[in-house]
Amino acid sequence: MAVYKYFGPGCSMFGYGCVEGLGEELSRRAYEKALVVTDKSIVELGIAAKIISVLDGAGIGHAIFSEVKPNPTVANVKAGLALLKAEGCDFIVTIGGGSSHDCGKAIGILAANGGEVEDYKGVDKSAKKSLDIVAVNTTAGTGSECTRAYVISDEEKRTKTGIKDRNALATIAVNDHSLMMSLPKKLTAATGMDALVHAVECYISKNGFMLTSELALAAIRCVFSWLPEAVRSPSNERAREGMAVAEYLAGLAFGNGGVGMVHATSHQLSAIYDLPHGLCNAILLPPVMRFNKRAAAGKLAEIGRFLRPLEAEGKDDETMADLAIAEFERLSAEIGTLVRLRTLGVKEEDFGLLAEKALMDGSMGNNPVQPTVQDVMDVLASVY
Amino acid sequence: MAVYKYFGPGCSMFGYGCVEGLGEELSRRAYEKALVVTDKSIVELGIAAKIISVLDGAGIGHAIFSEVKPNPTVANVKAGLALLKAEGCDFIVTIGGGSSHDCGKAIGILAANGGEVEDYKGVDKSAKKSLDIVAVNTTAGTGSECTRAYVISDEEKRTKTGIKDRNALATIAVNDHSLMMSLPKKLTAATGMDALVHAVECYISKNGFMLTSELALAAIRCVFSWLPEAVRSPSNERAREGMAVAEYLAGLAFGNGGVGMVHATSHQLSAIYDLPHGLCNAILLPPVMRFNKRAAAGKLAEIGRFLRPLEAEGKDDETMADLAIAEFERLSAEIGTLVRLRTLGVKEEDFGLLAEKALMDGSMGNNPVQPTVQDVMDVLASVY
Repeated sequence: MAVYKYFGPGCSMFGYGCVEGLGEELSRRAYEKALVVTDKSIVELGIAAKIISVLDGAGIGHAIFSEVKPNPTVANVKAGLALLKAEGCDFIVTIGGGSSHDCGKAIGILAANGGEVEDYKGVDKSAKKSLDIVAVNTTAGTGSECTRAYVISDEEKRTKTGIKDRNALATIAVNDHSLMMSLPKKLTAATGMDALVHAVECYISKNGFMLTSELALAAIRCVFSWLPEAVRSPSNERAREGMAVAEYLAGLAFGNGGVGMVHATSHQLSAIYDLPHGLCNAILLPPVMRFNKRAAAGKLAEIGRFLRPLEAEGKDDETMADLAIAEFERLSAEIGTLVRLRTLGVKEEDFGLLAEKALMDGSMGNNPVQPTVQDVMDVLASVY
Repeated sequence: MAVYKYFGPGCSMFGYGCVEGLGEELSRRAYEKALVVTDKSIVELGIAAKIISVLDGAGIGHAIFSEVKPNPTVANVKAGLALLKAEGCDFIVTIGGGSSHDCGKAIGILAANGGEVEDYKGVDKSAKKSLDIVAVNTTAGTGSECTRAYVISDEEKRTKTGIKDRNALATIAVNDHSLMMSLPKKLTAATGMDALVHAVECYISKNGFMLTSELALAAIRCVFSWLPEAVRSPSNERAREGMAVAEYLAGLAFGNGGVGMVHATSHQLSAIYDLPHGLCNAILLPPVMRFNKRAAAGKLAEIGRFLRPLEAEGKDDETMADLAIAEFERLSAEIGTLVRLRTLGVKEEDFGLLAEKALMDGSMGNNPVQPTVQDVMDVLASVY
């Protein structure tokens, strides 16, 4: 017997400018006042104002919490929750990449269930559904708008708490690529690689299943089709749409099939040095896959054959797995995410600590092979 | 501005024997008594008893309505609804292929909203969410367990009413391929081709969008990978799983992107002659795609390139579209669904009527080119 559960938002919206149609969608529900959860850059870009005008148009009030940090913190969640209560908001609109959605999920779960963030560490620990969340996505990477996963950092303890909770799923996920057109090249590249890592790690995950594998392959295909062009020509609408679809497919995949050692290690880099999640993932993808080849050569070879069918004839798994990894590395080099950890301020003397923490990360259990502390240190050293 | 909405069940279950895990899922909710909606063959195969024992194990009562016809009727819906009310059921468990799910959706919508089936003809016409539906799938074809669409036949008027209603989406969709192992070869073939038709028609649909296209391509790949083996070796678990995933992906695709002229025409064949939906779709796929080539050669060529990458180099759209259609036909021949309409009792003198009704079918609007009555008659004649 095998029981695999697959969760996704009941309603998602796509299309250039589709956020304009969100008012009609919200009007179907009895919402009165939104807590808008976002960050300063989204406010400065005018994206928050755009969504607020949609709320206004639908006769829905709002309060705004725009203090979300790139790696959202326990303090962010507490402050947002306090505002939600003080303002009497009855649903949450999150605007951003992963951070705002993650923060909004934590606020929504605490608003409905009480307690502290860490009470919900693990899988499906809450009793009640979060306050409704409308997740408006502004980057094409994290997939947080369509997953039940969220990660909150504890600044004091310098740890990240990873939570999977079906009750935290967004009610409506909005992927309007018109909101992604102004994403700078670097962020486009890093978030796009994040989507690729989700898909690849899910494809080889011990907890993946056939549906998540198919979604992951589709996501991989989209990333290779559209990411180079989205980075090269940020105003290419079709490429932006392709990446919005890629990251959503990757989100559905890894949100249900899991991620592995890349994430387990990357979480520690961003917790300790406050580094961007997508960039850390991009850097770690090739070396981790080289390490994983001992247990996942067959699966990696399938990705190789899918990406390069013309070169697959008569090639063994080892060769095709290498070809897949070479493709990841080539793409990363092309879009500028193939950088060294030393250039980001990572210190060699922290490798031991990083590796120890990585082994305890919730994502590591999905990895096809369990590394030792030395294995993780070797991976870090190879891209230092 | 483009607004595309995408709906799917919040929770789906996969895996061999996963229905055994349904009790835990149901226990999370406050259900007391299920109306089990199914048909006689599912009862005879012992599948209904299996699900009922899961309900028993979770301490949930049930009443059973097992009169659903292959093309479920208004009378079926009325009888099921009467039983639901008489027995005080608070949710619905549908067990079967498309028919039981379609019938259950209609019962659930009427139970929550009142009125008659035809009151809800069109898109999202109901005000309230259906009584919760748990859709347990037993064939790999219709996708009804994961779409908001349902079709109810009016026996008196000899018409089919097609309804799309977000409120009719299943709360839990169960795709346990252990329940599909005993599906006879003919039914495996016809339902599998149904899934293929959903994916192909969605891929070229006027109302499709990039997400539905990607899901459709993934579904097409799965059908070609697994359907021949599922028909050849019905006890091959992996092939059955592949088809369960294929039909679910195809369901998510067409449920949001639409189907076209194959369905518009096939609906009439099954309404007038009570013929199996999947088989009619299989027969019509190649000739309709030959007709559609005038407007969708580019899209059909993309399918051709996806299926046969090794033969794509330097070939134009026309050639690759022909190759895709040849692949559909070859698959259909291999699994025995490439039969002539005359062998099914279809009468040539009905072609005019069939064509007229097809033009009025709700699915026709999604087709990339609008045919004339003569066009539809020509298509029918070509496979007569």
